[in-house]
Amino acid sequence: MTDTLLSSATKEVRIGFDRPFVIIGERINPTGRKILAEEMKNGDYSRVVSDALAQVEAGAHMLDVNAGIPLADEPAILAEAIKLVQSVTDVPISIDSSIVEALEAGLAVYEGKPLVNSVTGEDEVLERVLPLVAKHGAAVVAISNDETGISEDPDERFKVAKKIVERAADHGIPAADVVVDPLVMPIGAINTAGKQVMHIVQRLRNELQVNTTCGASNVSFGLPNRNGINSAFLTMAIGAGMTSAITSPLHPEVMQAVLGADVMMGHDPDCANWIRKYREPTAGGNGREGRGGRKRRRRSA
Amino acid sequence: MTDTLLSSATKEVRIGFDRPFVIIGERINPTGRKILAEEMKNGDYSRVVSDALAQVEAGAHMLDVNAGIPLADEPAILAEAIKLVQSVTDVPISIDSSIVEALEAGLAVYEGKPLVNSVTGEDEVLERVLPLVAKHGAAVVAISNDETGISEDPDERFKVAKKIVERAADHGIPAADVVVDPLVMPIGAINTAGKQVMHIVQRLRNELQVNTTCGASNVSFGLPNRNGINSAFLTMAIGAGMTSAITSPLHPEVMQAVLGADVMMGHDPDCANWIRKYREPTAGGNGREGRGGRKRRRRSA
Repeated sequence: MTDTLLSSATKEVRIGFDRPFVIIGERINPTGRKILAEEMKNGDYSRVVSDALAQVEAGAHMLDVNAGIPLADEPAILAEAIKLVQSVTDVPISIDSSIVEALEAGLAVYEGKPLVNSVTGEDEVLERVLPLVAKHGAAVVAISNDETGISEDPDERFKVAKKIVERAADHGIPAADVVVDPLVMPIGAINTAGKQVMHIVQRLRNELQVNTTCGASNVSFGLPNRNGINSAFLTMAIGAGMTSAITSPLHPEVMQAVLGADVMMGHDPDCANWIRKYREPTAGGNGREGRGGRKRRRRSA
Repeated sequence: MTDTLLSSATKEVRIGFDRPFVIIGERINPTGRKILAEEMKNGDYSRVVSDALAQVEAGAHMLDVNAGIPLADEPAILAEAIKLVQSVTDVPISIDSSIVEALEAGLAVYEGKPLVNSVTGEDEVLERVLPLVAKHGAAVVAISNDETGISEDPDERFKVAKKIVERAADHGIPAADVVVDPLVMPIGAINTAGKQVMHIVQRLRNELQVNTTCGASNVSFGLPNRNGINSAFLTMAIGAGMTSAITSPLHPEVMQAVLGADVMMGHDPDCANWIRKYREPTAGGNGREGRGGRKRRRRSA
């Protein structure tokens, strides 16, 4: 029943075992987006604002904000981007950086309780990031790799996650404020990547009782029809107990997979969200009347 | 590692824990298809043949054949339909009837090892159907309801399935030849229907080591965008351990969900089936280069 509460100045979002899946919009990230990187570096945040609005409009419950631009003043850019995103949307933010000073700058300007993305199991990183998370009363994404890299053995990755949860507790951060990223590998290269994630997510949920997140799109790297693979991954991961993902809400197919998974999990009471979204006359359906009725009685010959 | 072997005169199909999901085409069924019912009753099997060919072309690994038409000679029609389908395709057949005499007529003409669809947990039905299955060396679909109806408690449905597996053993039918249908309820009416199925499928797999099937489309009865719900259901059910389904292969979205789930389960080596099917230039993809690389190293400030 673990709930991770996040907030902006005016809105709360809860990631939890018995709640609809939380989509953290991934788009505000200059990695691999040259134009966005150039614009942010030059103080032009118009695309940050339009990406924020478009993702919330498409159904994102939170937004990830990253300003990782080589040779740029990342702390200043990240703080500026966060202030702007908070001025135009009311969803909580995932402050995303691999530079501790940038996380610090983001936290300093943030209004509410953010998600700090991220901390790994490396001792040096833990000791720099966790005090910051504790000081600001934030929640944190815990990535299950450490000094030895990313293990292909999901039980090793589980151990790293456990270490981070324990270390967080030492800093006064409850397990409910640690959201574990089990690390999603490209399944085109590592065919067991899906099974690995399902296994570790189940252990994280049953043994550590922590919420989970992931960079979902990574699973389809290098494959055709990436949205199809991402949809299958998210649906199955939600079935295994995953409770949030950092992904793009701009693909209707992926959003449909998440909403459908919410229905399957019993997290969409009366299927109200599903019906509201899809009741248009363009909705699909195969016209069959269902099979259950026929099976309930057995005619005699 | 349970494998259920089915065959036609010339082709074998295995339903199994470590194998790609088996799609049993549901279309050759006059229930709710008035024109087809009328044609079959009048000895016109042209639509049976075209439906058989279309489903195999679309990716069905087996075909369900049902001739349940009120006031018609179901045994004769079912036998005729099976002979025709076997003459134009080479996939194994699921002989589908609620009338024992029709199952008998179908079995008499079948070439190979078919799936008999179905037996319930009702004593009278068990004692009429199981001897027939044993005599013909067939496999059988076991539906987890009995004299008391369909329980909403998945553990009660599990008990019925267990009883059928045990009774089958008494008749010399191994558990590998019993494919359990956990019964899929419409999730629009029963919001816990998805969780029920996932729970029972896991128990069937872990405790009875049996393969599973279901009438998948039933889950979306009454909801808009049924293919979206069916896709979410199948993906999540495959993640829970479901190994086959009686459904329509004619919806590209549903077939994509199944192929994507095979990839996730590690049942599509090197993603070869996925790549073959989706490598066309129309394939999707979101253009992101994946997130893993960034997370593997942490830059210093």
